[in-house]
Amino acid sequence: MERADIPAPPALKPGRGRRRTEDVRRAALSAAAELLLSEGMPGVTFAKVATHAGVSKMTLYKWWSSPGSLAFEAYFTVFEDTLAFPQTDDIRRDLTTQLHAFVDLLCRSGTVMAEIIGAAQSDSDLAAALSTQYVRKRRRLAVERLALAQQSGQIRQDVDLETIVDQLWGACYHRLLLPAEPLDTDFADRLIANLFTGLTPPGEHRP
Amino acid sequence: MERADIPAPPALKPGRGRRRTEDVRRAALSAAAELLLSEGMPGVTFAKVATHAGVSKMTLYKWWSSPGSLAFEAYFTVFEDTLAFPQTDDIRRDLTTQLHAFVDLLCRSGTVMAEIIGAAQSDSDLAAALSTQYVRKRRRLAVERLALAQQSGQIRQDVDLETIVDQLWGACYHRLLLPAEPLDTDFADRLIANLFTGLTPPGEHRP
Repeated sequence: MERADIPAPPALKPGRGRRRTEDVRRAALSAAAELLLSEGMPGVTFAKVATHAGVSKMTLYKWWSSPGSLAFEAYFTVFEDTLAFPQTDDIRRDLTTQLHAFVDLLCRSGTVMAEIIGAAQSDSDLAAALSTQYVRKRRRLAVERLALAQQSGQIRQDVDLETIVDQLWGACYHRLLLPAEPLDTDFADRLIANLFTGLTPPGEHRP
Repeated sequence: MERADIPAPPALKPGRGRRRTEDVRRAALSAAAELLLSEGMPGVTFAKVATHAGVSKMTLYKWWSSPGSLAFEAYFTVFEDTLAFPQTDDIRRDLTTQLHAFVDLLCRSGTVMAEIIGAAQSDSDLAAALSTQYVRKRRRLAVERLALAQQSGQIRQDVDLETIVDQLWGACYHRLLLPAEPLDTDFADRLIANLFTGLTPPGEHRP
């Protein structure tokens, strides 16, 4: 009987059965992300990813046109998993948790993110992919979390939430791309303190 | 009489006299900057700059090793002239004035700045030049102005001034390099409002 076109049920042959497509894809992305973070862009080859993920190179060729496109998707999948927004009843605490994770990831991934953003400045295809798959998604998730806090009265009603995105995460990208001062979790705490408390001394009112 | 080593006074022979070195240099940088802003990087050639500035190509060759290095210096000379910090007695007004000029210049110069920062992510020589000639200088000037405001009681004493740099100018670079929302003077006003007023609603105190 020709079985090639009939997908095997997931649990039919444990250990030898065909893994679910989604699992295989996730394993490949996870292996690519680990290679990217440990060895940088040159470490992400189809051969290495295939070995680490236990999938065939053919499978990788089928899904990704190049190791670069695999690395790109892997990187942003890691970001999505790591950078989920907690939702306790305290926006300042939740932002601190998330921003610490973000800064740690930026530091851990070394120059990868900086090089992707750098290359996007003179590569319109990459810029478009970065915008759609990363920038706009991350902004939307951040604004959604901030909007909940605004609805519950933890953020002033007249504040533009999009602007906050640039003053928290954007400020971290600034230290990544135009380095001069340290990018660390202390910096993240100061970003949040400045924004929530404001720079104006207490009791100071101008005419 | 051999005059070659004796600089002619500026007004000795109007129209024909040798211009002072500093004036010639300034004219070349100014012409290069205009070409850069109007035509982008490819518009900055020694031939065009020589014509626009009324200087010889030989003079340009003497001072700059390539049109790229001339363009680079020109760009940051324009930035320095345009982005001086006003010093009235109102830090919020002065920051607004300066940040509007900064945003206008970023918008006017189109993709030039983005491309320079982008290229610096994978070119360590360019990154070093950018850091020394631009990033650290601009940060220092900003922090000096903010320190005066802190000394006069217009900014809380416990605020880290370096962090403010990332939340004002850094936030603008974020919109330039990872574009999604508009980079304009309204945005600049919101950056300042968020920071000075703070996000926490009036009267809100947490335990």
